[in-house]
Amino acid sequence: MVKISESTIGRLSHYYRFLEEMEENGIINISSKKLAERGNITPAKVRKDLSYFGNFGRRGLGYNVIDLKKSIIQILGITERCNLLLVGAGNLGAALFSFREFKKASLHIVAILEKNPAKIGRYWEDVLIRDIRDLQEVIDTMKIDIAVLAVPVKSAFLVSEQLILAGVKTILNFAPIKLPHHEGVIIRDVNLTIEFESLTYLLRKQSNIPRKQKFY
Amino acid sequence: MVKISESTIGRLSHYYRFLEEMEENGIINISSKKLAERGNITPAKVRKDLSYFGNFGRRGLGYNVIDLKKSIIQILGITERCNLLLVGAGNLGAALFSFREFKKASLHIVAILEKNPAKIGRYWEDVLIRDIRDLQEVIDTMKIDIAVLAVPVKSAFLVSEQLILAGVKTILNFAPIKLPHHEGVIIRDVNLTIEFESLTYLLRKQSNIPRKQKFY
Repeated sequence: MVKISESTIGRLSHYYRFLEEMEENGIINISSKKLAERGNITPAKVRKDLSYFGNFGRRGLGYNVIDLKKSIIQILGITERCNLLLVGAGNLGAALFSFREFKKASLHIVAILEKNPAKIGRYWEDVLIRDIRDLQEVIDTMKIDIAVLAVPVKSAFLVSEQLILAGVKTILNFAPIKLPHHEGVIIRDVNLTIEFESLTYLLRKQSNIPRKQKFY
Repeated sequence: MVKISESTIGRLSHYYRFLEEMEENGIINISSKKLAERGNITPAKVRKDLSYFGNFGRRGLGYNVIDLKKSIIQILGITERCNLLLVGAGNLGAALFSFREFKKASLHIVAILEKNPAKIGRYWEDVLIRDIRDLQEVIDTMKIDIAVLAVPVKSAFLVSEQLILAGVKTILNFAPIKLPHHEGVIIRDVNLTIEFESLTYLLRKQSNIPRKQKFY
């Protein structure tokens, strides 16, 4: 299979959500033009994104909503259960834990690690908050697909190194710090400030607000 | 000024962070090649991104780190104070409030609204948590640039409509729901699940993990 860019993958996630809406509204077929309008991109780009994965569309008819949704689910691996280790049981950790949307996307927080003794030993729903010192045991005994780093910025680097030493291969980091690259480890930094920066840019350019926001 | 795509703006936010690191490390000049390596994009793309804003680089020498950083700060409007209204004093709201990085980016939460009576009347640092019913008064008496929606998904639509009715022009929505478009209002939906989906896609393709992650 060809290597697909992350921007394409990101757009597929969005198409998937549009298609869910459309299915709920009883829409059977959708044109690349309509999909493009929702994302404020060109129909050619939509067709190119979808062409990576085979021939879905039919000229004149467009795409079948349910079939296209199924294909995207398969491509993104949404139906395959993904086990998350949450590191940090602070406010952000709690917010992520209570995020219902995750379960719909087959993402399951199966373990929580924390260093604050006041929190260790408690349960969130049926998940025990364990001591960060149990990290190696958790990695060795549970199937963890992604570690979610929700610790304060000052601990993020150290904890990420501990995770990698313990054998974690994929980290989603919410601390506002760029973690160093490690061979064979996928690290993604989610920097929430960046979401604001593109807004402040738009605010300064108020005079020419685009009709719709691009999502990529 | 030309209309710049949001993907360019997103990359500028990343360049800005790389430049900050470089400045801290005492680096004077940086080539487009180095900037490109950090972002796993082509040097030509870096040069194109930066060319929108005038002629920064010098052939053979590259860009002056401090000058380029200053220019990007100006372009993104990072130094201009931006007042945020936080709607929702739950876990996500608390996580955002305690996010130190915001202040560095001139983002200031100046008001908090909440509907839970147990939280109304408390202070987070020096910001009072007020009743959501005070929304109109807050909008009328304070200069609010961006409303940050950190409420549960079931309330997000209703609250967003209330915000727009009250006169809010820019909303950053953290609830996992796509809010409808309103003429003259900038709404950006931050869907955290999407960050996970591109990871689950990569996990399924483990055999060909790219050496670095693209950030756009």
